[in-house]
Amino acid sequence: MSMKFSSKYLEQAVEALSELPSVGKKSALRLALHLINDESEKTKRIAQSLITLKENITRCKTCNNLADTDTCDICLSESRRRNIICVVENVRDVMAIEDTQQYSGIYHVLGGVISPLEGIGPEDLSIQLLKDRVEQGQVDELIMGLSPTIDGETTIYYLSKILSDTDVKISLIARGVAFGGELEYADELTIARSIQSRIPYLAGQ
Amino acid sequence: MSMKFSSKYLEQAVEALSELPSVGKKSALRLALHLINDESEKTKRIAQSLITLKENITRCKTCNNLADTDTCDICLSESRRRNIICVVENVRDVMAIEDTQQYSGIYHVLGGVISPLEGIGPEDLSIQLLKDRVEQGQVDELIMGLSPTIDGETTIYYLSKILSDTDVKISLIARGVAFGGELEYADELTIARSIQSRIPYLAGQ
Repeated sequence: MSMKFSSKYLEQAVEALSELPSVGKKSALRLALHLINDESEKTKRIAQSLITLKENITRCKTCNNLADTDTCDICLSESRRRNIICVVENVRDVMAIEDTQQYSGIYHVLGGVISPLEGIGPEDLSIQLLKDRVEQGQVDELIMGLSPTIDGETTIYYLSKILSDTDVKISLIARGVAFGGELEYADELTIARSIQSRIPYLAGQ
Repeated sequence: MSMKFSSKYLEQAVEALSELPSVGKKSALRLALHLINDESEKTKRIAQSLITLKENITRCKTCNNLADTDTCDICLSESRRRNIICVVENVRDVMAIEDTQQYSGIYHVLGGVISPLEGIGPEDLSIQLLKDRVEQGQVDELIMGLSPTIDGETTIYYLSKILSDTDVKISLIARGVAFGGELEYADELTIARSIQSRIPYLAGQ
């Protein structure tokens, strides 16, 4: 779409905003016009928070999660079990699991999964750091909290291989029909797995 | 949705980004994580372009369109007809009409339409400036390029009333079935108007 701008400042802002993922030229224009009309300090808040974020955010030296300091709050917490590590792809997965308030172990954020198609190999991920953690010997269990995709499975297989000479126990998060999901809409593989992995029914639970 | 952030910088950026229209917390997190992982100067480009936009953009003193200088390029252009003014709601409408490359007159940007429900009255719009332009006597025609909504119609009626003692000709952009649109999906009012406003068919045109 061609756009004839009446202002080069507007044009530059639209160009910049449309570099964001899933923000097209039209959405970028809508955002820029919103900021022009806004009478609060919203534009400054956004611009400064982005600069501050980019300049200050770091990664936890222990688990590779995003953090403000060298060691993240979860790794620092004395109430977490340090012998169980949940291996996840990114910080969003950590947030999703933390939101459940059901997990008391710590994490390891890989920063992605192995993906031959996208050219992501083990060396692009935080795998050596994980190996080091396991080899230090205080980890009893690694829970593979990766998505049940081909790349996720590949990564789990790779991790299990390079850790096979340690005695860490590797487990997978359960795969099955989602709560609230209707069986008929689940895919075949999920249904098949959920039957294979069936669990005893305990009445009254 | 609750979100447990591992970084307060991330949290602040997500808070700020989610102040943008139609950007929820999840989208804001996705945008922030994208910027964290970006290795170019994208974050700086976005932040600086927004600050520059907000500090420098102004409105054309003649037509109220967004501009970088006191008078916009369209009002300055010597190739535009100054006796025809197309009255539109906002800068996006100007851009849409300019994109057609079919209009050689100039514009007047109202900055909205009269909307009793949203508490927008004539005094909130650039109506006095339009009246001044017409009363200077060099305008032959005002084309009302406003959306055919109730608020749009109200605004057109109001403008026609306050300009009734001038001899400016007021016209409306044609309303009808959109090119490429299917008749059966057009609403009744549009179909009715398109029949009332039918035009002679000229074979071969």
